[in-house]
Amino acid sequence: MFEREEYLEKIGEYLRSKQYASIRELLLPLEPADIAVLLEEGGEETMPLLYRLLPKELAAEVFVELESDSQEMLINGFSNTELKEVLDELYLDDAVDIVEEMPANVVIRILDKATPEMRKSINEMLKYPEDSAGSIMNMEYLSLKADMTVEDALKRIRRQGGELETINTLYVTDSTRHLLGVLTVRDLLLAEADDLIGDLMDTNVVSVNTLDDKEVVAQAMSKYDYLSMPVVDGENRLIGIVTVDDAMDVMEEEATEDIEKMAAITPTDKPYLKTSVFDTFRARIPWLLLLMVSATFTGLIITSFENSLAVVPVLTAYIPMLMDTGGNCGSQASVTVIRALSLDEVEFADIFQVVWKEIRVAVLCGAVLAVANFAKMMLVDRMLLGNVALSPLVAGVVCLTLVCAVAVAKFVGCTLPLLAKKIGLDPAVMASPFITTIVDALSLLIYFQFASHILAL
Amino acid sequence: MFEREEYLEKIGEYLRSKQYASIRELLLPLEPADIAVLLEEGGEETMPLLYRLLPKELAAEVFVELESDSQEMLINGFSNTELKEVLDELYLDDAVDIVEEMPANVVIRILDKATPEMRKSINEMLKYPEDSAGSIMNMEYLSLKADMTVEDALKRIRRQGGELETINTLYVTDSTRHLLGVLTVRDLLLAEADDLIGDLMDTNVVSVNTLDDKEVVAQAMSKYDYLSMPVVDGENRLIGIVTVDDAMDVMEEEATEDIEKMAAITPTDKPYLKTSVFDTFRARIPWLLLLMVSATFTGLIITSFENSLAVVPVLTAYIPMLMDTGGNCGSQASVTVIRALSLDEVEFADIFQVVWKEIRVAVLCGAVLAVANFAKMMLVDRMLLGNVALSPLVAGVVCLTLVCAVAVAKFVGCTLPLLAKKIGLDPAVMASPFITTIVDALSLLIYFQFASHILAL
Repeated sequence: MFEREEYLEKIGEYLRSKQYASIRELLLPLEPADIAVLLEEGGEETMPLLYRLLPKELAAEVFVELESDSQEMLINGFSNTELKEVLDELYLDDAVDIVEEMPANVVIRILDKATPEMRKSINEMLKYPEDSAGSIMNMEYLSLKADMTVEDALKRIRRQGGELETINTLYVTDSTRHLLGVLTVRDLLLAEADDLIGDLMDTNVVSVNTLDDKEVVAQAMSKYDYLSMPVVDGENRLIGIVTVDDAMDVMEEEATEDIEKMAAITPTDKPYLKTSVFDTFRARIPWLLLLMVSATFTGLIITSFENSLAVVPVLTAYIPMLMDTGGNCGSQASVTVIRALSLDEVEFADIFQVVWKEIRVAVLCGAVLAVANFAKMMLVDRMLLGNVALSPLVAGVVCLTLVCAVAVAKFVGCTLPLLAKKIGLDPAVMASPFITTIVDALSLLIYFQFASHILAL
Repeated sequence: MFEREEYLEKIGEYLRSKQYASIRELLLPLEPADIAVLLEEGGEETMPLLYRLLPKELAAEVFVELESDSQEMLINGFSNTELKEVLDELYLDDAVDIVEEMPANVVIRILDKATPEMRKSINEMLKYPEDSAGSIMNMEYLSLKADMTVEDALKRIRRQGGELETINTLYVTDSTRHLLGVLTVRDLLLAEADDLIGDLMDTNVVSVNTLDDKEVVAQAMSKYDYLSMPVVDGENRLIGIVTVDDAMDVMEEEATEDIEKMAAITPTDKPYLKTSVFDTFRARIPWLLLLMVSATFTGLIITSFENSLAVVPVLTAYIPMLMDTGGNCGSQASVTVIRALSLDEVEFADIFQVVWKEIRVAVLCGAVLAVANFAKMMLVDRMLLGNVALSPLVAGVVCLTLVCAVAVAKFVGCTLPLLAKKIGLDPAVMASPFITTIVDALSLLIYFQFASHILAL
């Protein structure tokens, strides 16, 4: 595999001794994604120089892989001719991705230098909502007609195939661009030259709508093992295709977003080290404030039981353990359900099945934790550490609370994400931090109820 | 898109009226993955019947998509001829996946009915470690020789291409199977019939080793936008290929595993509703026990400050808020770093950059949280709720603790995953639950230190 450090060192050496031809030779055999990494590492000073050492086509491929701030910096340094050269080499979907990230003045310059055709397509694609299938599709694809022969089709591929992102999957449309069928380039190669496309094609085509969520598209492509997915408009007219490499990117982004939301972070689409301190702060602080305010309730509960705690102070020592265990149980349940929801394994209709399962798991977990905790409290806290205030009755209160807190945590943890989904919220927000805050308050209430009744406080 | 409920209803109707031909017609146009879902829903009673309605080739495609317990059930009901028919239609990597999940007696039966060639390949592939590139590769691929012409190559595709999983990417090897180059079927179609493969191929081939982690393979394929990745042995001999659909599955599995580990759950590879209560319990209880025992330390800290808490009981009320906020800050930092690590955006060498960034974010977050909290304590808790015991000095202690707890939490949260990675542990384990437990203890220590010094307890 690719050894970044080695390459960086060599490039540094060559730069110092101005051996530009050697740098070019070094970079040429590499994958565009790796060259982009090397350019990024060099930073603003060397990037334009290194970039200009690349041959035109490779340069465009590398350009697509760069972070958007590097792209902006390069474009600002480009002459009009250079900008036009890059644009001519780009696939349409990549061009749109770039335009979406640029500030207005750069966008105007790009649209000015693009061919009229590309400008029209970019403008069309920018109209699709963010996160829709339309926003990630490629409008350049090869379509065949049902009355073509295999020979005609192969001729068309030879004529147009060089400029397209993929020819592995081919779509058949009628004269008004309605999607009729699909076939692969393999089907063409294995058929006879005079076979008709209409006879070879598979008419059962799964397609998505331009307005469908891009996550749905990626999920479907993964489920059906598709290399490309046709995107149609409301009248089943073929508008574009989504290729599997874009679907993989969507899957990765969506997983990152879910993970960030689960940790109470507003998702950003920049890599960690590229995000400014202030942006990271802004993504985190609203949730921290919200959760801090929610924690007020736990404070209120403790305040109202202050007198009881003063009578049996040993009760205070077990508050953190009860809160943490409740929080952990709740987040186990919620995270499992959230992931199952986003993988389409579970839906709201399964709520009773989910609750019934979690309740049984909670009984098992609660029982084991209570027994372990009772033994630990008696053997370690009371005998080993000599905490004589810790009577078996107090330990009983703690363990009874534990059982109930686990049950409540699992119940809240598994139902909230399902309810969120039902009312159209993102279930991922209902993960550990929220669940913990709710479960904390409930656990404390249970704790003090048991304490005041059993210990007669 | 596919409407599960509608299909299930129709199948139910047809089953009751024994209209088997109609069921067959209903299923035929569907994707194998969707048919598998419908079969699973019917359960043990109708699955064998529905399965036998499918034509041979489609049946095998559906079989691959079923859960392993359904596969086992079907195999147990298969006659020897039926089993052989399914095996003949399977791609080798799918056959291996199935064999890996089956109990010994079923494996023996499968190996007995497989062709000698397939048996040999299955045995070979089972030798590769779980989670290695070797374990997910397909050994059936098309390889070309450098001295072939395009015409020869197309002939070979026509002869062998029908039985292969993919022909989109073609690999060129020498007589001892060393990997020399790569080209796409498009390159073939755009070339002249008498061009030499050796002249067309790209000799800069990124490949992976049979023993590389499958996660690394999936990451590389996503990064380089590959549709298939060649897998070579220690001597650069081509052994097999990993296709992009398998890479997508790996990405999805790995994301799920990371998410589960972050929530203190031992990963399982079954869907949520298919996992038994006991298995779910077993995946969760060890972590809960471990974390419960770790929470002992927080208990000990509170016990040792019991006397101070008795003097200023209002301090107790802010323990949950401090613990929760610390935990949330820590999990934000840890989860961000864990995800950046698994996307290869960050490595151990970046530790100082990461810490420096988190410290600055912590200062910003801490300051805002402290100010908000001080205002809330004075306005709500003291004035509105009339808690006169809450002096500005006590509020100051709480807010000062908050600032330090946030800083400690961010520091611990960002360093532990990096350290875990460095010593070869899975960073995902260093997520919220672990961080919370550590941060809880540290926050309390800080709290009581400030309290005893500032309030002179």
